[in-house]
Amino acid sequence: MDDKLMLMIPGPTPVPEQVLLAMAKHPIGHRSADFGKIMAEVTANLKWLHQTQNDVLILTASGTGVMEAGIINFLSPGDRVLVGSNGKFGERWAEVTDAYGLNTERITAEWGKPLDPEQFRLALEADVDKQIKAVVITHSETSTGVINDLETINRHVKAHGKALIIVDTVTSLGATNVPVDAWGLDVVASGSQKGYMIPPGLGFVAVGAKAWEAYKTAKLPRYYLDLGKYRKDAAKNTTPFTPPINLFFALQAALRMMQAEGLEAIFARHHRLLAATRAAVQAMAMPLLAADECASPAITAVMPSGVDAEQIRSVMKKRFDIVLAGGQDHLKGKIFRIGHLGFVSDRDVLTAIAALEATLQELGHEGFTSGAGVAAAAKVFASH
Amino acid sequence: MDDKLMLMIPGPTPVPEQVLLAMAKHPIGHRSADFGKIMAEVTANLKWLHQTQNDVLILTASGTGVMEAGIINFLSPGDRVLVGSNGKFGERWAEVTDAYGLNTERITAEWGKPLDPEQFRLALEADVDKQIKAVVITHSETSTGVINDLETINRHVKAHGKALIIVDTVTSLGATNVPVDAWGLDVVASGSQKGYMIPPGLGFVAVGAKAWEAYKTAKLPRYYLDLGKYRKDAAKNTTPFTPPINLFFALQAALRMMQAEGLEAIFARHHRLLAATRAAVQAMAMPLLAADECASPAITAVMPSGVDAEQIRSVMKKRFDIVLAGGQDHLKGKIFRIGHLGFVSDRDVLTAIAALEATLQELGHEGFTSGAGVAAAAKVFASH
Repeated sequence: MDDKLMLMIPGPTPVPEQVLLAMAKHPIGHRSADFGKIMAEVTANLKWLHQTQNDVLILTASGTGVMEAGIINFLSPGDRVLVGSNGKFGERWAEVTDAYGLNTERITAEWGKPLDPEQFRLALEADVDKQIKAVVITHSETSTGVINDLETINRHVKAHGKALIIVDTVTSLGATNVPVDAWGLDVVASGSQKGYMIPPGLGFVAVGAKAWEAYKTAKLPRYYLDLGKYRKDAAKNTTPFTPPINLFFALQAALRMMQAEGLEAIFARHHRLLAATRAAVQAMAMPLLAADECASPAITAVMPSGVDAEQIRSVMKKRFDIVLAGGQDHLKGKIFRIGHLGFVSDRDVLTAIAALEATLQELGHEGFTSGAGVAAAAKVFASH
Repeated sequence: MDDKLMLMIPGPTPVPEQVLLAMAKHPIGHRSADFGKIMAEVTANLKWLHQTQNDVLILTASGTGVMEAGIINFLSPGDRVLVGSNGKFGERWAEVTDAYGLNTERITAEWGKPLDPEQFRLALEADVDKQIKAVVITHSETSTGVINDLETINRHVKAHGKALIIVDTVTSLGATNVPVDAWGLDVVASGSQKGYMIPPGLGFVAVGAKAWEAYKTAKLPRYYLDLGKYRKDAAKNTTPFTPPINLFFALQAALRMMQAEGLEAIFARHHRLLAATRAAVQAMAMPLLAADECASPAITAVMPSGVDAEQIRSVMKKRFDIVLAGGQDHLKGKIFRIGHLGFVSDRDVLTAIAALEATLQELGHEGFTSGAGVAAAAKVFASH
């Protein structure tokens, strides 16, 4: 049905009306006092969201662009880096470090499993002459719905003392607790079309003092992605290059909404949506890709048996106008992914589960009691 | 007056209502057939706008980001490049080539004067062993309102045979004739918040066969700005990284408007606005920074005498809600710049000139006959 689309993918995520309308305003000049006020407000609110006093810089870029900036600003050719790779995005950061001629060591886990913090501990402890300059981690692996144990891995990085921790929080920030200062995270990258509840186009990167120290001697070439330029201009409430002004209007509106909801409530909502989605999927007798202890609050990957994942997605879209994500790379056709990140409510999860039940009926899939999915989700909502 | 802002700066430029409203729609998934259709349409229309059969790629980036991509994808460390520098943007591209360790030779002209094509001819003819790998030129120098003689400089590059021509057309594309194929321009970069009539956030780069040939052996590191990735995905009507979907809605709407107006009419309108603005400013006895023969169709820089440029801007803003641009770097405080680029009509120029007259009266400036500016602009409009 025209104009009835409902996004349940891990990005872009749904956007509130007030954010859409803010974005539809006529642009203002970016070298104006009015823009400076917006820049000051959103920067302060980004620090709140990141739970940090560090700089939080705003780039016109996708999540990949801002994560690349988070890597290349602090390293030099040949630097040794550990990159955690247990999904499409972890592997992407290893491709980035390869592309820049870094000495990349991948620490891998099977897609759908979390990274093993012990492997990081062993590699870091073995590095007695402190050659490892950075550890690059994807917090929430969007491709599989697995959340890695950033807190433990980071503790090993801190014990090493020299290496920076550089984290992709693209689908964890604004969904679960990422206390940048309390954990001492050096570089934290994220993107607007996720927990931020605004359309894609803006990237964010929080940079701490230790990373800025590394920046002074880092020699990888960069200009547009040179974070020093953004830092210098952010201090004057401006940007080095023309910012996407209308997305700033959206960001301003969305951050105000997030502040009104409160960090604890936002995290609790995402964990409730996660629990309800998983309970429902299990009640429908469909296997989950990720185990409970590593389930991302942003996305749930389902590995249906006896019914085709792509067929489910197709009926969900055609019949109910609900967009689910498919699998990526070798998981293509094997899983579907339900996004419950950002501007998603309990009602949305009930809707998606109800439609999923109807879809399974339509496909003649009989491995579960009809209604069991909605009942399981409702039970979670009743108790949370 | 609240909500009465009128932008007469060289970017962001005014945005039509239908473009703003297109942008305010709920995002769709970027891995969907619906997005593929938009991608196909805007790519075809971008080729029309560029008058080319070459690839025209779309990046989430400001003009600087896309121009950097246009440079670094086709060169290797130590490559010799000629960079034309006669304003802030020309100088910026030399900073980019410096940042990437290229062997940069600047060909300079005073700010407000055009680059001298003869200097390019001499340097290129002297390069008998073909060490010059690229010539980087800013077509319309936004900081001064000077348009460089791209056609002639490019002819010298073609005579050289080996060097690529890489052009910043950020404030010329969609304002004046840039026939990419007819001139054989290898790399042409532009940004959304200019002639395109949409807010900032998208960058465009047209890449020809000779540049793609150079790409194969080019060794400067890149990932997010790697144009090969964009080309590969554009062939499938998609993008390698999450695109700013709402800006694509805007782009789709704006390109349809441009097609309805027609290239010839768009160029004629900009040249008419330029002529009217310059005639009016001269009738108000204020010196123009650029000479007639190198005046950019996007922007007119005025160097007022006997009255302060920043005071003029301040009164224009406070009293009439019209934003003019100031001078940059050493021209700060010495000039103001009137943008007449993108969604700007004859009426807008009349409005700006009338307000400028009123501003000069308010400031007690007496060097001209009140009404002469509007009369001169009207005369241009009557005869074009």
